[in-house]
Amino acid sequence: MSRKLMIGAAQLGPITRSETRDQAVARMVALMHQAKARGVELVVFPELALTTFFPRWYFEDQDAIDAFFEREVPGPATQPLFDTARELGIGFYLGYAELVDAADSKQRYNTSILVDGAGHIVGKYRKVHLPGHSEHEPWRSFQHLEKRYFEPGQEGFETWQAFGGTVGMAICNDRRWPETYRMLALQGAELMLLGYNTPIHYPPVPEHDHLQGFHNHLCMQAGAYQNGMWVVAVAKAGREEGCELLGQSCIISPTGEIVAMASTLGDELITYECDLDRTKEIRDHIFNFSLHRRPELYGLIAKPSR
Amino acid sequence: MSRKLMIGAAQLGPITRSETRDQAVARMVALMHQAKARGVELVVFPELALTTFFPRWYFEDQDAIDAFFEREVPGPATQPLFDTARELGIGFYLGYAELVDAADSKQRYNTSILVDGAGHIVGKYRKVHLPGHSEHEPWRSFQHLEKRYFEPGQEGFETWQAFGGTVGMAICNDRRWPETYRMLALQGAELMLLGYNTPIHYPPVPEHDHLQGFHNHLCMQAGAYQNGMWVVAVAKAGREEGCELLGQSCIISPTGEIVAMASTLGDELITYECDLDRTKEIRDHIFNFSLHRRPELYGLIAKPSR
Repeated sequence: MSRKLMIGAAQLGPITRSETRDQAVARMVALMHQAKARGVELVVFPELALTTFFPRWYFEDQDAIDAFFEREVPGPATQPLFDTARELGIGFYLGYAELVDAADSKQRYNTSILVDGAGHIVGKYRKVHLPGHSEHEPWRSFQHLEKRYFEPGQEGFETWQAFGGTVGMAICNDRRWPETYRMLALQGAELMLLGYNTPIHYPPVPEHDHLQGFHNHLCMQAGAYQNGMWVVAVAKAGREEGCELLGQSCIISPTGEIVAMASTLGDELITYECDLDRTKEIRDHIFNFSLHRRPELYGLIAKPSR
Repeated sequence: MSRKLMIGAAQLGPITRSETRDQAVARMVALMHQAKARGVELVVFPELALTTFFPRWYFEDQDAIDAFFEREVPGPATQPLFDTARELGIGFYLGYAELVDAADSKQRYNTSILVDGAGHIVGKYRKVHLPGHSEHEPWRSFQHLEKRYFEPGQEGFETWQAFGGTVGMAICNDRRWPETYRMLALQGAELMLLGYNTPIHYPPVPEHDHLQGFHNHLCMQAGAYQNGMWVVAVAKAGREEGCELLGQSCIISPTGEIVAMASTLGDELITYECDLDRTKEIRDHIFNFSLHRRPELYGLIAKPSR
């Protein structure tokens, strides 16, 4: 039986601070309709896809921060995505800021969900590798306060049986860490879905700015190849509130080749028919883990440093 | 104080089966003299640099196999490399087949050594990730019997204080595994030295042959960037006993950029002045391990599978 899955990477252009969730969701619904017309079965949206990338600002007022978070998904603003999924029979990956509002405490995560073509949530992932800093650093031309506004995910990396295969999720900075791909592959992942918001300017080392696109693809192509996985990576792109965000959303095959790539910085759908059986070309041979890995010699990698 | 180190990657063209160790060593000594003229302080030679790449043949006779191994290094054939090192004040990395001939048993390893500019051995490494197969597979156009002829190294990955920095070694297939770079970086490596013999034809999946050069650089560029290390990778290249070996020996900066690359398939020296302090651009920021890694969530990576 064929395990070919038509996937769409639905890049979003910038979302201004004044743009409402309803407006952002309407753009995503439009992309889902485009996807349906191209035979897509699974659409991948960016990280924090419902609002502007708010960690670029320092807010003292917790209510101002919480205004960017979702207390429930689906909720009033996101329900159209679920309705469209069910109507069109298309699944999706969505990144958003998650607020867990318990009686005695609140937790906030940078989260993604995987939704199937019946509109049901299959899995949820909370970002493990939060980049940036936790204190206001006025010397920067913009902030990257993910370490302030989010708690790191405690559940780690998981996989789910969905869309005829084994699917893993990750978010943005996770893609720079080889452990992300390996943890997913060791749990059988054949496909990794990822959204990102990546400023081209990196204030601590601006002399690397021109390498931002190279580094983005380098990490993901290596992760795909070294783990024999499909990787679908989707940007929020373009000039958002004065900050240039990297585009180049892409679909990468288990050989590490970029097989589809966005060529604009706006809302753009790219598609590829991903044969999940092609993972075997890598995982049964050059990277046959059980034949070639030496986990007894990798202890330091999993050794807590503190 | 500057920590700039002039490094030479000394690619070798093919070594025929009839070529003697003296002949191979004479080629390497010539490359060391070229290196001296260019101000090089450390020369990197390929994996198994003293003979033809013998795991491509199935031998039943253990004496025929052992003829490719060294019982002592330095020994009569390799002494000129040590003498030249001392004479020129140039260190080197050398790959060779190591036979440990103990009273009650013999062990064979795919080994490299690091020798300083005074001709002293600083460190020894035994290949951890042996590729290929252990039984004769006549359907292949050539064999890759590393798993038959060598035992896997049991010491794992180490680093040494040498050449003004922290140096790690790896060999050939080790470069495809992200754990190699990570284990070295977690021990402070600023520079990884590696030799390889890589057939362009991969008999189990020949439809990937055209990607051999891409995969070679992809893994090493990602490993360099994700660990903020210099990587120096040196091939035995060209058509050796009917088998085409990949060239493209290279020096890769901690940003993952290829900063020098061989453009022939013969004996060729490429050089680059590697500033070991540039590792900080990466390791103090985007890949600051203590700030951003989550080793408590990486357990599966170091969990023995058997």
